[in-house]
Amino acid sequence: MIRLDTTEPGFAEAFDALVEGRRESAADVTRDVTAMLARVKAEGADAVAALTLQFDRHDLAQTGWRIDAATCAAAYEGLEPGLRAALDLAAARIRAYHERQRPVDSDYVDAVGVRLGARWSPVDAAGLYVPGGRAAYPSSLLMNAIPAKVAGVKRLAMVTPTPNGEVNPLVLAAAHLSGVDEVFRVGGAQGVAALAYGAGPIAPVDVVTGPGNAWVAEAKRQLYGVVGIDMVAGPSEIVVVADDANDPEWIAADLLSQAEHDVTTQSILFTDDAAFADRVAAAVEAQLTTLVTEIVARTAWEANGAIIVVRDLDEALPLVDRLAPEHLQLAVDDPQALFDRVRHAGSVFLGRHTPEAIGDYVAGPNHVLPTGRRARFASGLSVLDFMKRTSFLGLDESALAELGPATVALAEAEGLPAHARSVALRLRLNRPEN
Amino acid sequence: MIRLDTTEPGFAEAFDALVEGRRESAADVTRDVTAMLARVKAEGADAVAALTLQFDRHDLAQTGWRIDAATCAAAYEGLEPGLRAALDLAAARIRAYHERQRPVDSDYVDAVGVRLGARWSPVDAAGLYVPGGRAAYPSSLLMNAIPAKVAGVKRLAMVTPTPNGEVNPLVLAAAHLSGVDEVFRVGGAQGVAALAYGAGPIAPVDVVTGPGNAWVAEAKRQLYGVVGIDMVAGPSEIVVVADDANDPEWIAADLLSQAEHDVTTQSILFTDDAAFADRVAAAVEAQLTTLVTEIVARTAWEANGAIIVVRDLDEALPLVDRLAPEHLQLAVDDPQALFDRVRHAGSVFLGRHTPEAIGDYVAGPNHVLPTGRRARFASGLSVLDFMKRTSFLGLDESALAELGPATVALAEAEGLPAHARSVALRLRLNRPEN
Repeated sequence: MIRLDTTEPGFAEAFDALVEGRRESAADVTRDVTAMLARVKAEGADAVAALTLQFDRHDLAQTGWRIDAATCAAAYEGLEPGLRAALDLAAARIRAYHERQRPVDSDYVDAVGVRLGARWSPVDAAGLYVPGGRAAYPSSLLMNAIPAKVAGVKRLAMVTPTPNGEVNPLVLAAAHLSGVDEVFRVGGAQGVAALAYGAGPIAPVDVVTGPGNAWVAEAKRQLYGVVGIDMVAGPSEIVVVADDANDPEWIAADLLSQAEHDVTTQSILFTDDAAFADRVAAAVEAQLTTLVTEIVARTAWEANGAIIVVRDLDEALPLVDRLAPEHLQLAVDDPQALFDRVRHAGSVFLGRHTPEAIGDYVAGPNHVLPTGRRARFASGLSVLDFMKRTSFLGLDESALAELGPATVALAEAEGLPAHARSVALRLRLNRPEN
Repeated sequence: MIRLDTTEPGFAEAFDALVEGRRESAADVTRDVTAMLARVKAEGADAVAALTLQFDRHDLAQTGWRIDAATCAAAYEGLEPGLRAALDLAAARIRAYHERQRPVDSDYVDAVGVRLGARWSPVDAAGLYVPGGRAAYPSSLLMNAIPAKVAGVKRLAMVTPTPNGEVNPLVLAAAHLSGVDEVFRVGGAQGVAALAYGAGPIAPVDVVTGPGNAWVAEAKRQLYGVVGIDMVAGPSEIVVVADDANDPEWIAADLLSQAEHDVTTQSILFTDDAAFADRVAAAVEAQLTTLVTEIVARTAWEANGAIIVVRDLDEALPLVDRLAPEHLQLAVDDPQALFDRVRHAGSVFLGRHTPEAIGDYVAGPNHVLPTGRRARFASGLSVLDFMKRTSFLGLDESALAELGPATVALAEAEGLPAHARSVALRLRLNRPEN
């Protein structure tokens, strides 16, 4: 953890280093992934089966590729009732929030009689990557699957690694609840490739979303264009802006809720009170020792954590914008006054009773958010990621008479005579001679 | 040009080959571009200057990096008045269409008292790539720059190669008209890298859009995630669905308007009348000989063109969806009946008096559209490409009491105790012991 103070010399340089600090995986997986994708593209199911045997240590010919709907339904029915109710609540609230994201079509006729518009439609099929093992989060599955279903995607195929053939019942239960149509026991770059190209019983999809390790992320990056993907995801981060009227224990828990995800995550506190900063730092230390996730959380906090003391909270805002954090908590009495001036953040949590963890599960907004300063240009996952827009245009003879001559002039200026001719013929103009 | 008939044996296989046919550049530029990007990132302005000298044969120290606003304004003022009026008309109509794309924020309180919403905001800075030389299209500049300005982007920086130092006045005029803030004489992968990383007088931007050659496209693909980009673009294509009531000369000109762009473009006609197909084929041949773009158009038509005779136009629709064309012309009396059933197309042109070329210039919808079957999942360029969405959430104590317990249950099930604690502390629940 580093501690900075905006009044101290060297602050600007230290903050620059914090902003520029790369926490992305350094592993050079590009070449490996390129080879794996090419192999799946060329050999299909055989390549997927061989890579599954190599990395997940089970034989798809024996375990089967598909986990059937009845198994997923049984996993859901078998959940402890309190947990099942919590998942139900989460799914219902996520659905309600995302239903408001459905885009509106346009269709109008302008002053010169041109019909114009845009029509949104869902992709035919979406593929969802769901990690297995330690990072198997049913909440992520809901956050990816429900927007696709709200978009109207007819076929939602999920791949998930089942190391040694073992499935995660919580993941299967979430697949059932969120309406996933097909579940396959395939993971890694080969799983992403199978979704994009098709392999064996897995028919190709149009969009692939969902979190994964460095190989999965690189596979999606390389397949961008073959399919649509969600934003490239890096390590997660939280920025908390808090005054001294907060309970330092609450703020410490917020910082640690990010730190416990992974050793690469980053938690940053901005506060206008140095004594409060001390109290939070002490509370973090005390809480760390009581977490079963202590090793991960401590490593992340010590390597990437930061407490930054500012003159006043206004001073924090441009610094927050430079970080463009995935998550931003504004733990003050009047969070709106600060929020009005925030330009770049994936998701903002307003007030003292809105810990970021609420947004991870049940609040409704998506928890798949831009990381690594990408909130400067990217948005969280939404219904729009599973839809596309077709623009359209309709002219009659009189509308064409209005727009045709300018089109001919521009096409000729650009040296495109067939463009000009396609309009001129309809205008019964003299055909351009060229 | 191939001619197919759905009633003939072997049609399915031949159509599959048409759909799967790769027209993308085969040049393996990946490695070259990787090296160029790394060099610009490491060496900045020096690398950009050296690569400009190498590829564009001018010395930035002599020509200067920037083309000033006065030069662009003079280029605009110097346009032939008819052409200037045509550009003005195009810009005004493009602006009017895109203004309707501005997204609407949401901000509401749900039944349990949770404040929820999403706020859209523009990126701080956008970079626009504009090709030089033969493919320097002022219309493309308008189509990229105007949506950015409508989005509210404060800084729009443009790079364009000036081979041998020569500028294209039409491009400068369009830059002036569309409100580009900075114009730099830099092109190629080094130009894209300069926009993404910053170099010399070029400050880094958040989003890079605009067409370019294989090096430019690969640079954008590799920088995806460092900056936002528009969709990877491949060769352009048009599909025309036409009955025998059309003038074959009009349809031939439409097919050639696509073919004349580049030897990799594709023009496909679906018709329900074999004799009409013959007439169009003959008209294409006749028109080709009169085009100054004959060599390109003929090469494209012969290599990639297709005429497909169907039993009736309904039969064409699922075939069109498989092609998911960038441009789709429905040249019939009742285009809406067909359009209602089209699922995948970038932009649709309705009726006999709506040649695709109208959409290239002055109609208003964007002409930057998904190519190579990407309309299955991607959309044309829009105001949204220059904006991002911040979701937000606000709970008071009572709303947290509603959602808190489910959050604690899910966090514990996922093995994330600090998540659970951040909520439990605020609920004054007994602290989880782990």
